[in-house]
Amino acid sequence: MSVEEIRHFFEPESVVVVGASRNPEKFGSVIIQNLQNLGYPGRLFAVNPHAHEILGIRSFPSIKATGEKLDVAIIAVPASVVPQVMMDCAQSGIKNVVIISSGFDETGEAGRRRLEETLKIARQGSIRVIGPNTTGILNPKGKFTTTFIDVITKIKEGPVAFIAQTGMFAGVMLRYLTTAERFGISKVAGLGNKSDVDDCDILEYLYEDKDTQVVMLYMEGVKDGRRFLEIARKFTRTKPVVVLKGGRTPAGAKAAFSHTGSLAGEYSLIKDLFKQAGIILAQDLAEMIDFAKILAYQPLPRGPRVGIASMSGGAAVMASDAITEAGLVLAPLERESLNCFQKLLPEWAVASHPLDLEPLMEIVSGPEGYKIGLESILRDPNVDMCLLVVGLGLFPEEEETLVNTLAPFLLKRDKPIVVSLIGAKRQCEVLTTQLEEIKTPAYPMVGRAAKSLAALYQYSKVASSRSLTLV
Amino acid sequence: MSVEEIRHFFEPESVVVVGASRNPEKFGSVIIQNLQNLGYPGRLFAVNPHAHEILGIRSFPSIKATGEKLDVAIIAVPASVVPQVMMDCAQSGIKNVVIISSGFDETGEAGRRRLEETLKIARQGSIRVIGPNTTGILNPKGKFTTTFIDVITKIKEGPVAFIAQTGMFAGVMLRYLTTAERFGISKVAGLGNKSDVDDCDILEYLYEDKDTQVVMLYMEGVKDGRRFLEIARKFTRTKPVVVLKGGRTPAGAKAAFSHTGSLAGEYSLIKDLFKQAGIILAQDLAEMIDFAKILAYQPLPRGPRVGIASMSGGAAVMASDAITEAGLVLAPLERESLNCFQKLLPEWAVASHPLDLEPLMEIVSGPEGYKIGLESILRDPNVDMCLLVVGLGLFPEEEETLVNTLAPFLLKRDKPIVVSLIGAKRQCEVLTTQLEEIKTPAYPMVGRAAKSLAALYQYSKVASSRSLTLV
Repeated sequence: MSVEEIRHFFEPESVVVVGASRNPEKFGSVIIQNLQNLGYPGRLFAVNPHAHEILGIRSFPSIKATGEKLDVAIIAVPASVVPQVMMDCAQSGIKNVVIISSGFDETGEAGRRRLEETLKIARQGSIRVIGPNTTGILNPKGKFTTTFIDVITKIKEGPVAFIAQTGMFAGVMLRYLTTAERFGISKVAGLGNKSDVDDCDILEYLYEDKDTQVVMLYMEGVKDGRRFLEIARKFTRTKPVVVLKGGRTPAGAKAAFSHTGSLAGEYSLIKDLFKQAGIILAQDLAEMIDFAKILAYQPLPRGPRVGIASMSGGAAVMASDAITEAGLVLAPLERESLNCFQKLLPEWAVASHPLDLEPLMEIVSGPEGYKIGLESILRDPNVDMCLLVVGLGLFPEEEETLVNTLAPFLLKRDKPIVVSLIGAKRQCEVLTTQLEEIKTPAYPMVGRAAKSLAALYQYSKVASSRSLTLV
Repeated sequence: MSVEEIRHFFEPESVVVVGASRNPEKFGSVIIQNLQNLGYPGRLFAVNPHAHEILGIRSFPSIKATGEKLDVAIIAVPASVVPQVMMDCAQSGIKNVVIISSGFDETGEAGRRRLEETLKIARQGSIRVIGPNTTGILNPKGKFTTTFIDVITKIKEGPVAFIAQTGMFAGVMLRYLTTAERFGISKVAGLGNKSDVDDCDILEYLYEDKDTQVVMLYMEGVKDGRRFLEIARKFTRTKPVVVLKGGRTPAGAKAAFSHTGSLAGEYSLIKDLFKQAGIILAQDLAEMIDFAKILAYQPLPRGPRVGIASMSGGAAVMASDAITEAGLVLAPLERESLNCFQKLLPEWAVASHPLDLEPLMEIVSGPEGYKIGLESILRDPNVDMCLLVVGLGLFPEEEETLVNTLAPFLLKRDKPIVVSLIGAKRQCEVLTTQLEEIKTPAYPMVGRAAKSLAALYQYSKVASSRSLTLV
């Protein structure tokens, strides 16, 4: 039942924007512009007592006045008016409401009372509420959004969903994701103060959403910890969840309380419980995205042993430190693998693991050197995952040929492979795009690559415990 | 004396490239191309027994055959020939030699003997040696380099020196620095196997180098720990040193031994000793650069209390967590500051620290909101440093006006200020460039901004202990 209720938020057939505005900078205008730009295929209505038409949409003095049976109301009016609008929703039979407006429990006692009044009306009308104090929903495939942040028209669809307890940030973050990352988005849910709909409800919906393979979740507080852990336990056996917890420290917890009225809880305790429930924890937004990317793109490893091939001896040292510090193990290569590699080196060089490709590249081309390195670690039976460290700026042909040369190995999808890149900025960006177009995660720093492999390994243990449970 | 010896490596009046080549891809060709592209103003000679002229430079069968008194020899011939070339250097009175070639102690016993033989000749000729197995020197101001990595013609001069025990990486890293970062470079020294000249020698030179204000140092092993700590202690009282230590873990230490023949030492011990000597430790290259940037750009704080103004409540929570986890303190703002800020907010919003600027931005423009936020924390007497969290994508005018609007405050240089940016990629890049052109460090993640402030605070204690010592 709950899943069906939530589905309407993401896939409504009809929508009304309350607080629709002609002023193009007002939230009540941007929301309509966004829906129009996305090409929302459903029926769209506006409520504004002072207009008959806004941005080409018919406008009414109230929802009731539309005379329509509507799925979703998006409320973007001052907080003081929200209870009255909620009454209008209830009387019009609307069952799904997104409250964009701020000025509720995050602001103190008066706001808390205003929220309670609003929720009471919602409950009486069996209305599910997202917010207040949020951007709400984005569903690129369904061409639907409730956000007041100017949405990029063409949002790449993909396997990653994002749940955030911060409306504004879901918006800016989305800007980042759609312009700087290549994995696409399945669904975004900005939950704001979580007065009704919370992470649990969204996770239950995403569990059944075929377009979602990985979930990123920024969370300040959780209302019902027991329910959340239960759902997370079930969810993570099938799809990974990466959580960034806000309010890990006393200062952060205090800020979270001001922000969304959340009680952040004791992080050391939460951390353990979350891990037990199979959740991958990220320390910051960069990690959350790094982890989501590898979880979306790569197969799971059979163990923690990492093979490393690096264009630079120095980078090989850093990579060895990084994987060890991330809790992984430098793979003990078979003697045979090192012997094969040794035969290709100039006479003065000695093969050891991590493979230093520089001596090899004095004999063969750069791309060929990387290929030999990657192949050498990939086929070694003691290697569970591969880390290729690429330095750009030595071989001008890299941009044209490197990814093509590596592609047959990158596309095997037998063992996870990640690439760490350093060098000239533009060239790194070009190679990153090329690599990620064939779903090979590329990281600008070897430490981020190592931690991402560790997250993938951590999830492999969660996912494999599923098989044990189900057999 | 030692400083004068080292100075010749960076500022030679005449140079000979041994192993000069006509094949444009050979190291012995790229080195000459680099010198020509940089516009090296000194005298340049080539040694190649099979040519009379290479790239327009006169070529001789040996150094002796030039009949010249030369400052620096760059040796780019196979390792087996290096002892013989060193003999030629000694007989020609050269006192500074950079050995580019690999195939020495990093490859085992035979290589070790070859190095010993080479060094014996060098010692007899009172020759200082950089390398082997390195790229050596880059001095943008002096238009001099020994590197075989295709150097970007125009390298921005600036306050940061980089010492790296990895030639190849110093090259690729340089590519990154010159294309992705805005602080300029004073000197680069790739030291390779450190058979003679080591970090200590370079630090002593950089101590007196007026163009160097901050040193980044990637180090695998240190030959003479006691001397290094002594020099570091003196150095860090005047100029900060950021060290990235390779070989922190057993796997990394083993890789370091293969890479440069270095003994990495016990990191937990090294870490404490380095900190006591005033060194700032970085965990990876990104941190090393982040820290160097803030140390080069910003004044030192008087204490650990951070004022935060953020465009998003969620980001404010993350920022509070990040500074606390970095060992800093959320500043207890004066009641007066919060009252002033409160007066500017819409009626429903409640001022608290960190300052959430979103409610304010519903009334004033984005840039104006950031300005008010920054000013509010900057002038509070309980704030030692400022962190401004900017989200891009909400206000289209940001790109044109934000940095100009903030500039009067950013340029005060009374308290350190950093900016953390998230949002649309291109806009973040534009703003980052604008900010760093006026020496305000901009970080893509709030965690990196927080750690950089913590590094600056750590250094403020080292630098202030100097005043205590000197008074």
